[in-house]
Order: sequence, then structure tokens, then C-alpha cells
Amino acid sequence: MNYKLLLAYDGSRYRGWQRLGDSEMTIQGKLEAVLSKMVQAPIEVVGSGRTDAGVHAQKQVANFHCETQMTCNEIKDYLNHYLPEDIGIISVEEVEERFHSRYMASEKTYQYRIWNSDKPCVFSRKYVWKLQEELNVALMNEAAQEFIGTHDYLAFCSNKHFKKSSIRTITSFAVVRQEDEVIFTVTGDGFLHNMVRIMVGTLLSVSRGELQIADIAAIRSAKIRSNAGMTVPPQGLCLVEVRYR
Amino acid sequence: MNYKLLLAYDGSRYRGWQRLGDSEMTIQGKLEAVLSKMVQAPIEVVGSGRTDAGVHAQKQVANFHCETQMTCNEIKDYLNHYLPEDIGIISVEEVEERFHSRYMASEKTYQYRIWNSDKPCVFSRKYVWKLQEELNVALMNEAAQEFIGTHDYLAFCSNKHFKKSSIRTITSFAVVRQEDEVIFTVTGDGFLHNMVRIMVGTLLSVSRGELQIADIAAIRSAKIRSNAGMTVPPQGLCLVEVRYR
Repeated sequence: MNYKLLLAYDGSRYRGWQRLGDSEMTIQGKLEAVLSKMVQAPIEVVGSGRTDAGVHAQKQVANFHCETQMTCNEIKDYLNHYLPEDIGIISVEEVEERFHSRYMASEKTYQYRIWNSDKPCVFSRKYVWKLQEELNVALMNEAAQEFIGTHDYLAFCSNKHFKKSSIRTITSFAVVRQEDEVIFTVTGDGFLHNMVRIMVGTLLSVSRGELQIADIAAIRSAKIRSNAGMTVPPQGLCLVEVRYR
Repeated sequence: MNYKLLLAYDGSRYRGWQRLGDSEMTIQGKLEAVLSKMVQAPIEVVGSGRTDAGVHAQKQVANFHCETQMTCNEIKDYLNHYLPEDIGIISVEEVEERFHSRYMASEKTYQYRIWNSDKPCVFSRKYVWKLQEELNVALMNEAAQEFIGTHDYLAFCSNKHFKKSSIRTITSFAVVRQEDEVIFTVTGDGFLHNMVRIMVGTLLSVSRGELQIADIAAIRSAKIRSNAGMTVPPQGLCLVEVRYR
């Protein structure tokens, strides 16, 4: 049987989604440890994509194959009982054998939150990047529209030896202020390693006047990482949703 | 000079507001340590009231006397620089000599949050009490109105040897559902030790049918702590606001 998981996690304590050797401090590792104990057999969990160390998820999707007499609700309750409280299972669903959470994901939405205020940020401090400088939100939102469409995003990838296709389609990208925060929301068919964080860093360069809006297309064409902006820190990033056709 | 502080804190890591001997893990202790270092002299900080271990504050008020050439903004920036990130200073203001944050507080509002859902609660897990049973919110809200007015609240105080007046005036008490949470918001001229948490526990007893609405007045009159409900856990409680005449 093939099970689809919908889960939320606070990535603060973790080295990211992907299991690394024996390290337990990954989301995949924690899930596999509890599931393997549940069915008394090794279980491999496939995620819709890796999230990096410190990155959060509101609705990550994963799937795993196993044989069990437990109902979906029982699996959900078992996982929520044994997982640490910074990982929460929203739902467990039986899906068709061929469902693959990574290959079949058609669209993902990420959000990046900047705490842009001199007010203290006590209660959401682990989910934002604090940046006090004045930001030109309207200009960043205008610049963000340059990312829309199907393009080669190699310049926005931190993996220097990336061999596969670096062409991705971005369908929407909005930058808005919400009270003390500036929030970047981007949707696309997939993202390269650190791509969202480099796009946000590039928009900040535009806000600062270090780059012009027209530079974005030029950076993309040149395919040189160092032409783009900084990689903003992970804790502001959250995988909001994964969609399937 | 007398300075008024408005501050927020995540109480999770602390033993409460009040300094305890040498223990640094109190909010008052942290503030006093940083302020004393700032002016190179011992500083005593007076809070509007104590919050217990694990209880949070959105807008606690405190004041302290000191001599310094620093402006209010400089004091604020110094504190926010040296305080841990789970304590944040919202504002520093010079006030008249006679201002006393505890004696002169005329009204306080507390909020208690119950996560009442089978959905996981990853991002607000430190600020709610998780309780999955079905709650009768309308009945609890009706019962909460029995607390309005000026009454002796000794039965709702966890301090068995309380010698001072236990008469308090409650001006509003609302219980509402907001999505996955049930939120209790109570305002009064002051609260006895654990009084909010015992009132919430008593409303839960009403929801469960263990107590009737009419019992609330009777419990108050009898002044026996064990007649009231449980003391709900601290992490759901937050001091929302302190008002002054």
C-alpha cells in the first residue's frame, strides 16, 4: 500500500528534510524512524522535495509504501504520538500505487518572511529573518514579475555542479507588506537548490538600488551565480503548499 | 529619572517574572542584569505584576529608576541588543517620579489559548494548551459572565496563606472559538495567584458538566479552593495588556 502524508514542521532544530547517514536530526530521518518502528520493517519516505536546514513547512507532502493493518487515522495518531512536537502530521491518505510525491508534484508555493520593523519580534522570531533597513516593497514586487515565465535559473542555484535541467516555470511572485513584515510568496513548478532564497536576495539588491529591474533577465541569461543577490538565511523560508495534477 | 518599559516575552524558558535569589532565569533578573551593566550600578525593576513560570506577555509594563545620559531610544536599543531574543522591549518612556507600574495599574487583560483540534499545532505549540475533548464554548462563555463584578476570589487563588484582600473586580470575560483554538479573554483590576488559570479550569468543569453555572457563585462564597476547577497549565496564558488611569 502507498500512503500520502501531509505534514507541517518547524525546521529550526533540523538539518533539513533529507536523511544524512545516521543523523537523526532530519525530518525524513525522524519520520522513517517512527514508521519503521510502527511496522517493524525499514520504511523509506519520499518527500515532494528537500527543504534545507532551518527551513519550515506548513504543508509538505511525502509518501511511503508499507503493509499494515492500521487505518490511515491510526497511522496519523501513531506518528503524532511518537514524533517530536515540532513535526506534525496533518493527514494520512491511501493513494494509488503509482503516486510519487516528488515526480508528480506539479506546483509548489514558498513564502519568505522578513521582519522589517524596529518592534521586537518575540513570538515569531524563529519564522522570520529580521532586517531593519527601509525596503521598497512596491519596487521589489515589480521586479518579482521579471521572474514569471519559463526560464533557465542556473544563476539562481547554489549548486555549482548542477547537471540536470535548470529550466523552471514560475507562475506567480508577490511581495507585500503585512504590518511589521514583508512577505514574498512565489509559486512555480519546482525550485533549484536555494533558488527562492537567492531570488529574495536579488529582490533586496533591487530595493537597495544595487541592481535594476532589467538586470534580472540579464543575470538569468549570463547564468553566473555571483551576479545574483545574496542567499537570504533559511529561517524566514516556509514551504506553504505542494499541488498535484 | 523614572523609566517605563513596555515589553513582550516568551515565558517558555523562564521561571517567571520575579527574580529568585541568584537565578538568572527570570524576566526581572534578565532585565536587571542588563540595566545594571548599562549604568554600572544596581538597578531594581518593578513589574506591573508577576507572571508565573512559563507564562508569556505581549505587553507587560515595568519601571525602574536610574541616572543616565542615554535617551529613551538608546536605552531601548541597548536592552534589545543585550537581552535574549525571547524578551523584547517595545518602548522606553520617561515618566513622572511617582509612577509605579504595580500600584498604579488599574486594569489588566489576560488571554488563555486552548488548541482544541486534532490538527497538529506546530508553529504555536509553545503558546497554547492542547486539549482535544469537545468543548461547549457557548456554555463556557455564559458561565464566564458569572465572574463579572466585584467579588471575593479566595476560592480561585492557589496561595493557601493569602493574607491580603482577595476582592477583585472583573469587567469582562469572553470565551470564543477562533478556528482551531478556544480563547478566553478576561479583564479585571487585578488577579490573585493562578486566578486566571483556575477560572479557566472551572469553566472547563462547566463544559464537562461537572459543575453548573450556578455553582460559580457558590464556590466563590464558600472560599474553598478545592471546590473550583483545575489550574490549567501555564503555557496557554499570556498577559495581553496593562492599563493605567
